[in-house]
Amino acid sequence: MTNKRNQIKGFCRNVDEKKERLKKAFGYILKDKGFGNLGVNKVSLEAGISKNLIYRYFGDFKTLIEQYSEGIDYWTSQAEKRDYSEMTEKDVLKNLLGEQFNYLILNPEMRQLVLWGLHESNYNTTSLLKKRELFAERLILQKADKRFDGRIDYRGVVSVLMAAVYHLAAYSSVQKANFCGIDLSQDKGRKRVLDAINLILDNIYDLNEDKKKATNDNE
Amino acid sequence: MTNKRNQIKGFCRNVDEKKERLKKAFGYILKDKGFGNLGVNKVSLEAGISKNLIYRYFGDFKTLIEQYSEGIDYWTSQAEKRDYSEMTEKDVLKNLLGEQFNYLILNPEMRQLVLWGLHESNYNTTSLLKKRELFAERLILQKADKRFDGRIDYRGVVSVLMAAVYHLAAYSSVQKANFCGIDLSQDKGRKRVLDAINLILDNIYDLNEDKKKATNDNE
Repeated sequence: MTNKRNQIKGFCRNVDEKKERLKKAFGYILKDKGFGNLGVNKVSLEAGISKNLIYRYFGDFKTLIEQYSEGIDYWTSQAEKRDYSEMTEKDVLKNLLGEQFNYLILNPEMRQLVLWGLHESNYNTTSLLKKRELFAERLILQKADKRFDGRIDYRGVVSVLMAAVYHLAAYSSVQKANFCGIDLSQDKGRKRVLDAINLILDNIYDLNEDKKKATNDNE
Repeated sequence: MTNKRNQIKGFCRNVDEKKERLKKAFGYILKDKGFGNLGVNKVSLEAGISKNLIYRYFGDFKTLIEQYSEGIDYWTSQAEKRDYSEMTEKDVLKNLLGEQFNYLILNPEMRQLVLWGLHESNYNTTSLLKKRELFAERLILQKADKRFDGRIDYRGVVSVLMAAVYHLAAYSSVQKANFCGIDLSQDKGRKRVLDAINLILDNIYDLNEDKKKATNDNE
């Protein structure tokens, strides 16, 4: 009985280890060669695990990609697990944008997932984007809709700030050339980006309050 | 004499045509397969022109890439040729951001050049970025430095807006999924992005005027 149990446990642990090894191999190729060089054969070869086992463990290759992506994406792997309940939605947004910027700089694999989503629409890139959307809706956007109440297109502004974070984090990790004269390869330059984002956000919230006051005064 | 002239003319035209055909082949591969699939052999095969002639006409492969890129990049091929002398620097910036957004949506080759620059630093990506920088300095940034005079980090704000344009144009061309709940595949959603950018810019200019006035009042 004990023996049988151990065998099953041993077998299970082995499967989990192999699944982890396959995901790591996927991540290694993503980081090293970029999103354009992924394929089930390459992952199998890199992991030293037969292709058949990928299908047995994950069902199909896209499920491996999906599980890997959720484990590495800032939204699904980091932000989803945080407790934002004590923060205002403005502070949550500032926090998300700043942390995602720093996370992307440290994480070439997630940067590749972002670039992949700008290169093509496929099951994986679209599925990940939809998960981020759901999370952003729940955490910030729907609350902010009520606060801004049609006075300002808050979602338009947030889309600009969010997009800038993706682009500038990648730029600052890859290029030494300046961007608008700012050296983004240095902490000082990166801080200027985050300060500008916070300035824009503070401004938009202030403008909303001014508009709200003006409407109330007129009533 | 006439004969010889015609021969030379004929030969010259032929070289120009072949150079154009090589650049077109490069653009075709860039658009069809992405920046990760470029190589001198593929371009030679696509154009039906021997590799040796690429080296004879362009000196090296990177010069072909450079010439192609300058011909397709919004900044070097469009903005450089416009006359902005009658516009304020705020309107020039709004115009540049809006036109570049629309240009990127219509131009998958330039989008690939942008993604390439976020994927790796190499001779071509860096050289193109430096040209954009020089142009932006001359056209807007140095004038704006004087206007903002250290009160607001204008360059930080512009870097955010510029980066957002690159990211959102690519997203809206490739993905059907929403971004912050906005359907960027539709004109209506795209207009919201440009309106948000203009709102942010107007706000920053207003804030600068307020700060300037406050300083003057205190003096």
